[in-house]
Amino acid sequence: MRWWGWGDAGHPSALPPHALGFLREAGIATAPRPPVSLAGVRLPAARLSQSVLSTLREIVGTDAVRDDHTERVLHAAGKGYPDLVRLRAGDPGDAPDAVVHPGNHDQVRGLLAACTRASVAVVPFGGGTSVVGGVAPLRDGHGGVVTLDMGRMGEVLALDVRSATVTVQAGMRAPALERYLGARGLTLGHFPQSFEYVSLGGCAATRSAGQASTGYGAIEKMVLGLRLAAPAGDVDLAAMPATAAGPGLRQLLVGSEGTLGVIGEIALRVRPAPQECVYEGVFFTDFDAGVEAMRTLAREHATPDVARLSDEQETRMSMALAGGGAKARLGRAYLGLRGYRGGCLAILGFEGPAEEVAFRRSRALKLVRGCGGLAVGRSPGEAWLRSRFSGPYLRDDLLSLGVMVETLETAAQWSSLRELHRTVAAAIADSLSAGGTPGLVMCHVSHLYETGASLYFTFIASQRHGDEIAQWRAAKQAASRAIVAGGGTITHHHAVGRDHAPWMIDEIGSAGLAALSAVKAELDPAGIMNPGKLALVSRRG
Amino acid sequence: MRWWGWGDAGHPSALPPHALGFLREAGIATAPRPPVSLAGVRLPAARLSQSVLSTLREIVGTDAVRDDHTERVLHAAGKGYPDLVRLRAGDPGDAPDAVVHPGNHDQVRGLLAACTRASVAVVPFGGGTSVVGGVAPLRDGHGGVVTLDMGRMGEVLALDVRSATVTVQAGMRAPALERYLGARGLTLGHFPQSFEYVSLGGCAATRSAGQASTGYGAIEKMVLGLRLAAPAGDVDLAAMPATAAGPGLRQLLVGSEGTLGVIGEIALRVRPAPQECVYEGVFFTDFDAGVEAMRTLAREHATPDVARLSDEQETRMSMALAGGGAKARLGRAYLGLRGYRGGCLAILGFEGPAEEVAFRRSRALKLVRGCGGLAVGRSPGEAWLRSRFSGPYLRDDLLSLGVMVETLETAAQWSSLRELHRTVAAAIADSLSAGGTPGLVMCHVSHLYETGASLYFTFIASQRHGDEIAQWRAAKQAASRAIVAGGGTITHHHAVGRDHAPWMIDEIGSAGLAALSAVKAELDPAGIMNPGKLALVSRRG
Repeated sequence: MRWWGWGDAGHPSALPPHALGFLREAGIATAPRPPVSLAGVRLPAARLSQSVLSTLREIVGTDAVRDDHTERVLHAAGKGYPDLVRLRAGDPGDAPDAVVHPGNHDQVRGLLAACTRASVAVVPFGGGTSVVGGVAPLRDGHGGVVTLDMGRMGEVLALDVRSATVTVQAGMRAPALERYLGARGLTLGHFPQSFEYVSLGGCAATRSAGQASTGYGAIEKMVLGLRLAAPAGDVDLAAMPATAAGPGLRQLLVGSEGTLGVIGEIALRVRPAPQECVYEGVFFTDFDAGVEAMRTLAREHATPDVARLSDEQETRMSMALAGGGAKARLGRAYLGLRGYRGGCLAILGFEGPAEEVAFRRSRALKLVRGCGGLAVGRSPGEAWLRSRFSGPYLRDDLLSLGVMVETLETAAQWSSLRELHRTVAAAIADSLSAGGTPGLVMCHVSHLYETGASLYFTFIASQRHGDEIAQWRAAKQAASRAIVAGGGTITHHHAVGRDHAPWMIDEIGSAGLAALSAVKAELDPAGIMNPGKLALVSRRG
Repeated sequence: MRWWGWGDAGHPSALPPHALGFLREAGIATAPRPPVSLAGVRLPAARLSQSVLSTLREIVGTDAVRDDHTERVLHAAGKGYPDLVRLRAGDPGDAPDAVVHPGNHDQVRGLLAACTRASVAVVPFGGGTSVVGGVAPLRDGHGGVVTLDMGRMGEVLALDVRSATVTVQAGMRAPALERYLGARGLTLGHFPQSFEYVSLGGCAATRSAGQASTGYGAIEKMVLGLRLAAPAGDVDLAAMPATAAGPGLRQLLVGSEGTLGVIGEIALRVRPAPQECVYEGVFFTDFDAGVEAMRTLAREHATPDVARLSDEQETRMSMALAGGGAKARLGRAYLGLRGYRGGCLAILGFEGPAEEVAFRRSRALKLVRGCGGLAVGRSPGEAWLRSRFSGPYLRDDLLSLGVMVETLETAAQWSSLRELHRTVAAAIADSLSAGGTPGLVMCHVSHLYETGASLYFTFIASQRHGDEIAQWRAAKQAASRAIVAGGGTITHHHAVGRDHAPWMIDEIGSAGLAALSAVKAELDPAGIMNPGKLALVSRRG
């Protein structure tokens, strides 16, 4: 992956030629801002002693411990907006003293024991795609910090076809697993926007949700068992369809973000690969009408597998970026005639056996029509499918033009959702304007639940050069305050990491934080595991 | 509720007249064994000091602290087989020193603070229906033990129709909530066999699953938010459809069985009351064929809302108890003609909007026919619906005839299920035979998951008079050993309580137990909360 962004070096620009005009019309100034060269990235000197390095090399082998410039830069940060701003400017702030590549679970355990003894912080690193500072190499007073790259642990360990369960090493990447399963007529069904790079262990550790999570469930619904290597010992939970044996330990480890230990193996539920996939576009006159239609689908147990409802602003931008061909002009004219101009587009995707897809599609379309929806056929859905993983590439292109683009997400009960959409969008817009860089704020609903849904915001503005981080932080804090005040969760699927940690107490309270911190003190008594994430208090003596 | 069993005093016998003949044929001897009188129950003297009693009375009011004989007997045990054996013999072993009836959350907090100071153990008590010793008044070295009866906290606090969410006080009984929701066109959909008496807080604390949990989900899927009063402070989690904000704290408190604190309020997902309910009977030539059909339904996402597949033994007994009328004889003759004599009966129940029920029913029946199922119409399902809550009444009748009847349950992945059925049934049967009381062992699958299912065993044998507890313990231990060895969970929906506590380490390991014990030490530093349940180690100084 490019050290300063997303994708491999040869990936072409994702920005359509007419996008510049759209930005100009929106009042967003652009100017070329290329990243520095790799050699130009400034890192502090690596601090591990030779004796610690030798110990690590004894455990994993000499080649599996690296502390060269390139390797340290590649693991200096995740892929959040502030990460990329700092990397592109050549100043990530800090980097791991070494990057260690364990080859198996026993090596992971050995590494944790050695790092506990040496007071070296350990940052588990799967795909490195965190957008919330989840792999930031924070030291928290320890004598060093190593990043534990799980890339060598990428094998399928077992496939239980009868039980529709696959067990994998946590470093396995999502595309590799889909290829393995696809060859056997199966799918995991987990497609986050970061799909091309994420590891399954990273997904489990961060409560990742995929674009089809309305149908397939977020990763937390897929994890049936797991094995966590913690400094105090392994927690090994066999795959089970369900259990009433006390507090939900699996769900305590899912979402632990590397702060309790390293998830080394995971047993995941799989499904038959869908026989048929149908993606429909539906227009609504406004976002409120669309939200009401999504709520109706949820209440009537008629949810599609993919459900994405863009607000007016996001719909306008999608249509603008889709360009101005004859077909697009015709489409816009049709919407105008039907009274849907300036409205909102939803994509509804149905996957499964043909007969079932036909029934569910017909029932869902009937329900959304009853809520004022106008079905516009399959081309919007097909367009979305083609570009479903392109967001991070587009962000790189915009960064290279001096444009900030950031996303954040929440979820809330249906009764709070529309007001939350308004207050969070306004908080972001106000923050951008107050900073002198008015921008675009757009949003979509992307995960439906019976009692509520998620909201995913994207905002774009000219960067305040030399002051990008403060500009970003002001918008992020304004959004987070509005989310907490409006009854939303601080994160629906990006996880807590470093960036959301200050808001965790608002969500689970001091007794909740204390309970989780007690688990950390038990499993990680020296407090070496991924410091500074999740707001857990380390209690090392 | 009857202090020695189930239901109110006026409830008629549930045992059909021809059941005695069936037991005789099965070699199970009967002899009248009435319970002792209430006055004949021997309890140790209550040990709380007047000063502690005064403190408790100051918090909840004089009438809400009771230590009379009747009240202590009513809270001396749950409704497990060993509980009833001991109670009916007039010797429950121990009883709470006092029973306290808090009226609100603040009183609960006050009680926990007072009991922490006085070193008095606290046993939360909802419906008192635990069958695993979950409300046993264990002292664990404390100076006293009080049972906290939640019966006065039974109100609906809020109904959010848009979000399909109801918030209730934890002491609310399930039938009261269903009445409240039913009047508004809604349902919770939670119908455990103990439905008539359970509290919602008790359900949440024990990971209860209802008879329709295949469709509606177990209680853990319904709990969106909750408020736990712990000695160290409240943990207050707002209702959320989903969140990625760290480890799953809601799921850590669900299943905590009163060992971390008292669940005082719960926000629960509700659904529209079903427009239509259709229950179908389907026969299979044997249990393996039936299991394969259930697995097929799960794999194809075609599960009914209720799915119960009885094994050969349970089917035989159900048909025998259903009696010998002309219709039943005709039915048996038909099964014989079709080659299904001695086979297995499944009940498949579909609930929801009429159009959806019709589609799902037709699709599911097609799939089970493809697996060799023979649809036999609605009367078996209707018969089951009529008697769905009668098990505990039947048990009382059998106890009065000197017959042991006990149930236990597990769940496992599909690939282990059939072998687990065989080994657990054999372990129980062997234990009964070895003790000189050969019995009947029967089983059903009652909850389907994509990757596995539950198994629910019932066994019946003549009691070994004067040695009932040892007889029971031998069978229970044999079953538990077989469950652990066969890859099943030690409990699918009865919870851990006191009876499954020794097996918890087999399921979650020592590091898992240590992690949960750390949470207990944090939230309940004096170790007063429901001692002796869940195998959590108390670490009070």
